[in-house]
Amino acid sequence: MTNEELLLNNLARHISLEQTEIDFFFSLLTQKTLKKKAFLLRQGEVCKTENFILSGCIRMYTIDDSGQEHIVMFGVEGWWTSDLYSFFTGTPSEYYIDALEDAVLLQITKERLELLYEKVPKFERFFRILLQNAFIAQQRRINQNLSYTAEQRYLDFIQKYPQLEQRISQKQVAAYLGFTPVFLSMLRKKLSQS
Amino acid sequence: MTNEELLLNNLARHISLEQTEIDFFFSLLTQKTLKKKAFLLRQGEVCKTENFILSGCIRMYTIDDSGQEHIVMFGVEGWWTSDLYSFFTGTPSEYYIDALEDAVLLQITKERLELLYEKVPKFERFFRILLQNAFIAQQRRINQNLSYTAEQRYLDFIQKYPQLEQRISQKQVAAYLGFTPVFLSMLRKKLSQS
Repeated sequence: MTNEELLLNNLARHISLEQTEIDFFFSLLTQKTLKKKAFLLRQGEVCKTENFILSGCIRMYTIDDSGQEHIVMFGVEGWWTSDLYSFFTGTPSEYYIDALEDAVLLQITKERLELLYEKVPKFERFFRILLQNAFIAQQRRINQNLSYTAEQRYLDFIQKYPQLEQRISQKQVAAYLGFTPVFLSMLRKKLSQS
Repeated sequence: MTNEELLLNNLARHISLEQTEIDFFFSLLTQKTLKKKAFLLRQGEVCKTENFILSGCIRMYTIDDSGQEHIVMFGVEGWWTSDLYSFFTGTPSEYYIDALEDAVLLQITKERLELLYEKVPKFERFFRILLQNAFIAQQRRINQNLSYTAEQRYLDFIQKYPQLEQRISQKQVAAYLGFTPVFLSMLRKKLSQS
């Protein structure tokens, strides 16, 4: 699948576009290549773009006062990702976004996204549905953090990000689930024996 | 402020409507009165409406296997509230929604909301922005649950829901923050002395 097809398939899930609208949308995007371990965003910077991932894997995380990393989300091919709070409010981000694998992104700035909404209002629908799905996924995560067992949360992670576990380190998975790597290792051992 | 004004002010924050569009929107809404402790939604039921709160206070929560309540959100006058996951997917809800105070709501069904998007696409924008804000608030909460101290989470609750603490019991506040009521009481005492 070409880059263009990957993004067009993503759009076609929710809206139907004319060729001129597609061309206009693509004219607003810029491509960015990110080497493994390179930063897309650092804490304190303003998140200037919403990003569609063409290839690779990125993570968004915070570092708490004790130096501990907490991963808020992963992103892989076909996912949209950014610090939406910083992106929409223009305030400095609390997050870091970096690449766990070499990555290629298509980026759109806030100004261009507003222009897109104005010129092609169908994109209001597209991003409304995208946000709707993101909101739902987050609500489930909040609930799970409160009421799921460690095992349930781990199994949910595998379901949400299929195959991701084979691509990233156990340390990253632990930082997403709020476990220590040792605890995650014990849990995986227990599950493989059950 | 009349009911109509409260909702119109809410809409006017993000979109500008013609009188015919306002009339059409209002024709799609039905009013519902909820007595204190009455349920708007029970676990296992499908959430059939998105709800705008005209007055009163509601909460959305789950009950875990040990019988413990976990409050996911509160809603007061001027807030939109529903189990969006159940509402949009038509699957049974994991949540209960009930009234902590007598409440009056304006409700719109999924079918009518889709009709609204079709007839007045500006509402795509309105609900896109609403979801955007809800998403941002949730992302902050996930991060806070992982990295904030108990004290920081309590202070954030007060900021997010001003005056709410005077309206609901400490037990409810504790169930939102994931504290025991005893722990919350100790924390409040400590803060009042500092």
